[in-house]
Amino acid sequence: MSKKIKDNRPQARLPKGMRDIGPDEIRGLGRMLTQIREVYENYGFEPLETPAFEYTDALGKFLPDQDRPNAGVFSFKDEDEEWVSLRYDLTAPLARYVAQNFEGLPRPFRRYAYGPVWRNEKPGPGRFRQFLQFDADTVGTDSVAADAEICMLAADTLERLGVPRNQYVIKVSNRKILDGVMEIVGLGGDENAGRRLTVLRAIDKFDRLGASGVRALLGDGRKDESGDFTKGAGLTKAQSEPILRLFAAAEANNAAPTTAASLAALGEFAQQQPGNAALAGGLDELSGIAKLLEAADYEDDRIRIDPSVVRGLEYYTGPVFEAELTFPAVSEDGQTTRFGSVGGGGRYDGLVERFTGQKVPATGFSIGVSRLCAALAHLGKLDTDKAAGPVVVLVMDKARLADTQKLAQQLRTAGIRAEMYLGTAGMKAQMKYADKRGAPCVIIQGGDELAKGEVTIKDLIEGAKAAAAIKDNKEWKATRPAQISVPQAELVKTVRELLARHRT
Amino acid sequence: MSKKIKDNRPQARLPKGMRDIGPDEIRGLGRMLTQIREVYENYGFEPLETPAFEYTDALGKFLPDQDRPNAGVFSFKDEDEEWVSLRYDLTAPLARYVAQNFEGLPRPFRRYAYGPVWRNEKPGPGRFRQFLQFDADTVGTDSVAADAEICMLAADTLERLGVPRNQYVIKVSNRKILDGVMEIVGLGGDENAGRRLTVLRAIDKFDRLGASGVRALLGDGRKDESGDFTKGAGLTKAQSEPILRLFAAAEANNAAPTTAASLAALGEFAQQQPGNAALAGGLDELSGIAKLLEAADYEDDRIRIDPSVVRGLEYYTGPVFEAELTFPAVSEDGQTTRFGSVGGGGRYDGLVERFTGQKVPATGFSIGVSRLCAALAHLGKLDTDKAAGPVVVLVMDKARLADTQKLAQQLRTAGIRAEMYLGTAGMKAQMKYADKRGAPCVIIQGGDELAKGEVTIKDLIEGAKAAAAIKDNKEWKATRPAQISVPQAELVKTVRELLARHRT
Repeated sequence: MSKKIKDNRPQARLPKGMRDIGPDEIRGLGRMLTQIREVYENYGFEPLETPAFEYTDALGKFLPDQDRPNAGVFSFKDEDEEWVSLRYDLTAPLARYVAQNFEGLPRPFRRYAYGPVWRNEKPGPGRFRQFLQFDADTVGTDSVAADAEICMLAADTLERLGVPRNQYVIKVSNRKILDGVMEIVGLGGDENAGRRLTVLRAIDKFDRLGASGVRALLGDGRKDESGDFTKGAGLTKAQSEPILRLFAAAEANNAAPTTAASLAALGEFAQQQPGNAALAGGLDELSGIAKLLEAADYEDDRIRIDPSVVRGLEYYTGPVFEAELTFPAVSEDGQTTRFGSVGGGGRYDGLVERFTGQKVPATGFSIGVSRLCAALAHLGKLDTDKAAGPVVVLVMDKARLADTQKLAQQLRTAGIRAEMYLGTAGMKAQMKYADKRGAPCVIIQGGDELAKGEVTIKDLIEGAKAAAAIKDNKEWKATRPAQISVPQAELVKTVRELLARHRT
Repeated sequence: MSKKIKDNRPQARLPKGMRDIGPDEIRGLGRMLTQIREVYENYGFEPLETPAFEYTDALGKFLPDQDRPNAGVFSFKDEDEEWVSLRYDLTAPLARYVAQNFEGLPRPFRRYAYGPVWRNEKPGPGRFRQFLQFDADTVGTDSVAADAEICMLAADTLERLGVPRNQYVIKVSNRKILDGVMEIVGLGGDENAGRRLTVLRAIDKFDRLGASGVRALLGDGRKDESGDFTKGAGLTKAQSEPILRLFAAAEANNAAPTTAASLAALGEFAQQQPGNAALAGGLDELSGIAKLLEAADYEDDRIRIDPSVVRGLEYYTGPVFEAELTFPAVSEDGQTTRFGSVGGGGRYDGLVERFTGQKVPATGFSIGVSRLCAALAHLGKLDTDKAAGPVVVLVMDKARLADTQKLAQQLRTAGIRAEMYLGTAGMKAQMKYADKRGAPCVIIQGGDELAKGEVTIKDLIEGAKAAAAIKDNKEWKATRPAQISVPQAELVKTVRELLARHRT
């Protein structure tokens, strides 16, 4: 593909996976962010902003896809020949910040952060390389109360944004359970990292493919309807059966297994594996969380223990969370599925220790703002009321630009959104411009008006209605509906009345 | 410098020129942004967001420092081996956007944008490599009314933020005047780009060094007080005198030459150079702008024609603007100077044409938000009221975590900012934590309170005052000031009353 066109001009194009965001979405996002911030602040979190890029070694490599070196992140060398990377999340920079400022921080340290993150991944419909996250984290405590609280925060946030209680669920599992299972099937240790990843990906597909699909992916592989073959993890039947048994509950996912049922199943499984410390520890933490959720009355209808949760990031060490919207949505390939994940998080007890060698346990939750924004739009809960366009003052005589500009200024000083037409085109183009800007009305002061010390106010909203009702051009010209001339001193008052009329 | 410490751990550090931003500044910035947005919206501009990086060829190279290849920007290659760069301003991405979406846009197209930009420049005190800009641009018109309007927008914005009228000025010049002068002294043409830059830099120092300093910099060079020598542009006296004559008015800068005086001086200068089209054109545009400013009553006290304005960016083609704060500030080297520039802009008629070959004239203004934030703090106009810390519910008995958490939840549900202490430390550390968080009060429910169905509310603000008045520990223990026990059902009511008491 040629990037230069004739005369060696650059082509106006966006880098792959990038997008521009227009006024309606920006305004909708702005309102979302205000609401999320209110909930986070209400929980006592304090804001922090870190820069867009960090030293690569400070961020670490925790993204799921490790097929390529440096995969997943955008990196470059600074002038001292050190690698820096655009942040791929807000958690790794937080760990750097805490390690750097540990002595001066309250403990626990509770911060929220909002901003873009960048991932060098394959873009697709609805999948961009720059997207927004809104995180809350509690750093410096290993109490499961912090995990339980962060799940409640996630639930409260979704409801504050307008997601009805029966249309979402926060699922909670524990990375230690998965670690315990990997041990059982003989996939512990660094040398099995690649195969563990394949297994995790298979488990992640339980709700989409069911037990038979996952069984195939754990074994030799699976051919899908289109005939495409996905290579499996190569586990023997003896290896894969414990996994399938443990996660079978997830198959009946839509029937929503209760927290009590999930804990009972996990307990039974753990009893069959005495001496598996990871399994026992994970179960213990989940029970502690469940107790707090029950006491706070968040259990099951809002937050649920569900062992099928697999979070991709590799820094998690304990409880992991996933916020899922459960209402149906039509996917890219035309299939109806549940809308799916709009956020997640978990406990990462090792991230600060990476720097300092000192244990600083931590837990947090991240909302995928861009994706949640799409979900709210789908639910009709995104406040996308278009902002009212500006009042447009038309330019009738270029020699009188300064006077015309004063009319616009007069309106603005009165707090009315207004502008003078700044192009050089004629009357017809100016009216078209006002239409395109969504102007409620235009202001005209031609020679006739000037002579009488008047201005004409043309109501574009009323005018459009009248135009629909009027039959011919002649009648239009004769009646000139939705148009009024007033003394110039009454401009502000008349426009204010017009705007008030259209607001109600 | 070693980046790894023992055990091969990464060092927790920020890349050069980067910084973290804490809660007070974030809240102050948030209020600033809301106010700036209000003014921009009032003028009829619409928001647009473009991504953090663009193809390098789409951004173009317009930063002043061209000593090194690729200087000034952070760049890296994408997976298709194409160069991309972090945006160094918000104007170049706007030009790309307009070129890409030209057919669908209203004309003129008026947009505002806010966000971080990145410059790979030498960092220093108060100079960072990531900083915030807030821009407004009108694209698709060559009318000087658009230039005049954007200067009024800048003035209104500064006043909205609390900068008093006599403490700032928006200066307006025209790049064409400089072009005309360069022609006169024989520095036209591409081959003189480097020397033109040296001349521009010299002119830029008029208000700091005076005519004698600039004369030296235009000639062989200048030795400053410390003995450091700056090489000059090497102009002959015959070359440098017209420049000095033109800009001499700027030397008496603090005496604020009026727009009328500046225009008269420029007119006289232009008359001596008949046939210099650039000079004549620039003067004509400045006169047009002055006429509009006068009619709108912004002339001189808010906006002033001043030929000494030199903007660094190389894409400007016509009027250029600079917003300067005129109150004194102490500079890094201990000298008292005026606070200086907090924004600027100008006309860039060639940026969209770069892509399309089609003339799309445009003008805009950019506020340096981070710098303006520092200025407002200096003026005492930055609203840095600390947010009230959360009410902290202390943990008296870890076995009763769920009940303790419910108290926090009860407060939050009532809209009161609250959290349960989530660490594992004892009573003393918990009180210290509450102090550090700025908590107005703590909630305590120990065994005694529980037995009576009560909670104790300890007023930390009142408590601190009482502590200052009480002489000894014994008296303190006997009276326990600023502490009250109430039935649990009255928790919310009592805390609300306490918060209301401290607000007034």
